[in-house]
Amino acid sequence: MELKFKYPIKIKTLEWIDGKVRWIDTSKLPFEEIYIESDDYERIAKAIEDMEIRGAPAIGVAAALAIAATAYKYRSLPLNELKIKLIKAIERLRQTRPTAYNLFWALERMAKVLEKEYNDSDTLCRAIIEEALKIYVEDINTNIAIGEYGAKLIEDGDTVLTHCNAGALATSAFGTALAIIRVAWYQGKKIKVIATETRPVLQGARLTVWELKKEGIPVILITDNMVGYVMSKGLVTKVIVGADRILSTGHVINKIGTYMIALTAKRHNIPFYVAAPTSTIDLRTPIAQVIIEERDPDEVRKVLGRVLITLEDVEVLNPAFDITPPDLVTAIVTEKGIIYPPYETNLKRVVEG
Amino acid sequence: MELKFKYPIKIKTLEWIDGKVRWIDTSKLPFEEIYIESDDYERIAKAIEDMEIRGAPAIGVAAALAIAATAYKYRSLPLNELKIKLIKAIERLRQTRPTAYNLFWALERMAKVLEKEYNDSDTLCRAIIEEALKIYVEDINTNIAIGEYGAKLIEDGDTVLTHCNAGALATSAFGTALAIIRVAWYQGKKIKVIATETRPVLQGARLTVWELKKEGIPVILITDNMVGYVMSKGLVTKVIVGADRILSTGHVINKIGTYMIALTAKRHNIPFYVAAPTSTIDLRTPIAQVIIEERDPDEVRKVLGRVLITLEDVEVLNPAFDITPPDLVTAIVTEKGIIYPPYETNLKRVVEG
Repeated sequence: MELKFKYPIKIKTLEWIDGKVRWIDTSKLPFEEIYIESDDYERIAKAIEDMEIRGAPAIGVAAALAIAATAYKYRSLPLNELKIKLIKAIERLRQTRPTAYNLFWALERMAKVLEKEYNDSDTLCRAIIEEALKIYVEDINTNIAIGEYGAKLIEDGDTVLTHCNAGALATSAFGTALAIIRVAWYQGKKIKVIATETRPVLQGARLTVWELKKEGIPVILITDNMVGYVMSKGLVTKVIVGADRILSTGHVINKIGTYMIALTAKRHNIPFYVAAPTSTIDLRTPIAQVIIEERDPDEVRKVLGRVLITLEDVEVLNPAFDITPPDLVTAIVTEKGIIYPPYETNLKRVVEG
Repeated sequence: MELKFKYPIKIKTLEWIDGKVRWIDTSKLPFEEIYIESDDYERIAKAIEDMEIRGAPAIGVAAALAIAATAYKYRSLPLNELKIKLIKAIERLRQTRPTAYNLFWALERMAKVLEKEYNDSDTLCRAIIEEALKIYVEDINTNIAIGEYGAKLIEDGDTVLTHCNAGALATSAFGTALAIIRVAWYQGKKIKVIATETRPVLQGARLTVWELKKEGIPVILITDNMVGYVMSKGLVTKVIVGADRILSTGHVINKIGTYMIALTAKRHNIPFYVAAPTSTIDLRTPIAQVIIEERDPDEVRKVLGRVLITLEDVEVLNPAFDITPPDLVTAIVTEKGIIYPPYETNLKRVVEG
């Protein structure tokens, strides 16, 4: 399927090819560029759990495409059996990762399509595929809109610090935080990026560095604990990160380490921007009910899944996300525009309005 | 040489054996426990540069012992030639690492001994060895005193977060921050430690975890960017870190990442203590003249000196230290007692008084 967008797609994170989902295995980057194709929702669920596919928007789109692939694969089943397959697939994908909101948002959209009345399997199958592709194309256009709104915040000469990978590799294409960097760069602004390595899974060192090098955008890599140093030396003019979930209060749930970066930015009066589609905004869940995913302790004990860096039996914590309170967030850039505080009222207005 | 101290020495970081310096190669821990012996100051200088010996107090003591080993090795040379050898050795050791103040403090003490009048090489040699061993024994007693003063701050049930390794492996024995943990533990206080892994060289994951496990003190390992998470969850009651240099203003220069930890502790009203001997306190150098060591970029690009985690040509920053401003420091624990703000007056009073 060849789609045309305003900017060329250089990194094909997710694709829909002849009834199958194709993804780049981000867990192997930047050392190997491996693409995997599957129409098995269990395999795609595993790809999400093992972070072959990661990043809140990409997880949501991949889940929707996994439902579409399931519909296509079983399209010759009787309508009722197909429906049961799809319900099971939705249930399975819901269990993959608990924190990123886009996953639940995308699966809810798919479930709503499934709830309608259909005369036969073929019609249901077409409706399911149509909705998944709509989510996919929307994600790309959303990223472009985030990039264009956000680029207005970027000035010539800026050095933008970013954390983790909120790039093409975290979405269908272009990214959220990195879409802003991309568009500003395409506009001819001379900018630089400082990328944090983002332990334990090293998305900054492995993915953001690779992605920005592909674009020719200058990037400097630091360890996560160097943010205070670079900010106190005046080397950072803006921070832009992505989000896995944004609450109605403006609390931003994002990759572990985001909160300390926001706190340090505040101390140095450096604007701290969050870039995310409105599908990341969760107006329903109160903060006390948000589940912060605890991942395999070996992610901390080892590097790249194989190199032990400590004693193998040491006790470990491995929360994948933290929560940045709204007083540290300068603005949230969405596809519907830039949202400023007070978030309590402004998020609701933008999402529902 | 068997010395007796108030507490048993379980980890022999530095020793003086028959005219030679013996050290544990901390760069290989916890995977291999290798001890190296040398009377070659060039070899010992390399050991400091390559972080086989690291930690501000250990660097100072090792440099002093290196001068002693040089005196012993060349004791049969004519007095003038021996003096020239020793001056060269002091000069070489001064070049090893620019930030830790104890290095310069220890070498200055050795230089002062050298400046006195001597009748023959043997007398000079004995005076040099005596001063080096005095520095060594002082360091151990200093650590014990820091431990005992600091333990008064620790309550039963505390969870202490520490960064890097300010332990036995950073001193001649016992440590600074970890001496406090040790003494509190020996006093029967039920405490736990949260250790940050401390990228890029992983002193927390490799050394602090190993050292605390040897003592049987419970330790939980986290990545550097999880500090905000554990503090916001109420899992940390105190922070104790070491220091490489403390300025007259109370600015604390310590392992990269310390500043962000202090900032986060402040936000959560968690006391942030610095443990260091008074030999770390530099009343002379203004902040603008402090040199923050920039180390080999491959320390960031790789893990454990061998495993590439990013593109091999990516630009990198690798400052080894950062500066924590005095408003974030609750108190400084020294062998002369606990120093509280205002540091401007109180540091001077303790050091000079």
